[in-house]
Amino acid sequence: MMKRFTLIAALLSLIGSGACAQSAKEVSMIKITSAGTHPSAKGPADYFTGTVRIDAPFQGEAPARIGGATVTFEPGARTAWHTHPLGQTLIVTSGIGLVQELGKPVQTIKPGDIVWIAPAVKHWHGASANTAMTHIAVAEAVDGKAVEWLEKVTDEQYSQQPQ
Amino acid sequence: MMKRFTLIAALLSLIGSGACAQSAKEVSMIKITSAGTHPSAKGPADYFTGTVRIDAPFQGEAPARIGGATVTFEPGARTAWHTHPLGQTLIVTSGIGLVQELGKPVQTIKPGDIVWIAPAVKHWHGASANTAMTHIAVAEAVDGKAVEWLEKVTDEQYSQQPQ
Repeated sequence: MMKRFTLIAALLSLIGSGACAQSAKEVSMIKITSAGTHPSAKGPADYFTGTVRIDAPFQGEAPARIGGATVTFEPGARTAWHTHPLGQTLIVTSGIGLVQELGKPVQTIKPGDIVWIAPAVKHWHGASANTAMTHIAVAEAVDGKAVEWLEKVTDEQYSQQPQ
Repeated sequence: MMKRFTLIAALLSLIGSGACAQSAKEVSMIKITSAGTHPSAKGPADYFTGTVRIDAPFQGEAPARIGGATVTFEPGARTAWHTHPLGQTLIVTSGIGLVQELGKPVQTIKPGDIVWIAPAVKHWHGASANTAMTHIAVAEAVDGKAVEWLEKVTDEQYSQQPQ
């Protein structure tokens, strides 16, 4: 009886070790999300005008607040007006884009430009009328929320001459 | 006397309006840092091995914690071992790179890959031995500090066969 108990204990111990090794691998502190893991997604019609593609979304784990994605706007496409509780950084990677703060002129943005949008500032961004634009957008969330979406940018608002 | 006072008040009012208009422009809530505003910087020898270039640094304004840069590693170049208090996100934009968590195998990273490094995890990243690598690195700061630099990655550590 004692021998059988010892054998069972030894087997359980082995199973336990295996489980631990697997667990250790699972809790690796570096997570690589390979290109192509997330299919390209369409920017929802409620929040975007025109054709917008969202690639490579990412989200840090708490206590980090960071999250973002690569967003591509076809010519004429843009976000709706929106705000971010802790601001947003845009890193323009290709094309020619536009950004506007409510009540200020539309501004042109180009590859290599970094755009900082302060917390709670009502704004929109998107492609220029004739040239697509891609940016990486990064924002910090408060209580899991990184953006508040507002009304669409009208064609009249969009068609202002940029600075 | 009354007329003179009125004139002075009107002038002061005009000057005041001018000051306000200028102030409003200065406190624009969207800040565009155009490509080429910051000269390319060399990765300091204390924190990097080999030739490393840092471009387009950015920093959100408090209460945001976000900051980052585009970092290019020539073949064989890498960071020293280091940790981030709130983790780090790497967005690989070109080339072939490597990343390693202490005690785990070296892993290969490629364009379009997103790497999440959890808070306080000791790690390094850089180019592969024969091919350069560029990534955008983004991290959140605690009390203004986003990284703790540790010892250099030895050639023996660097030359492990990646997974």
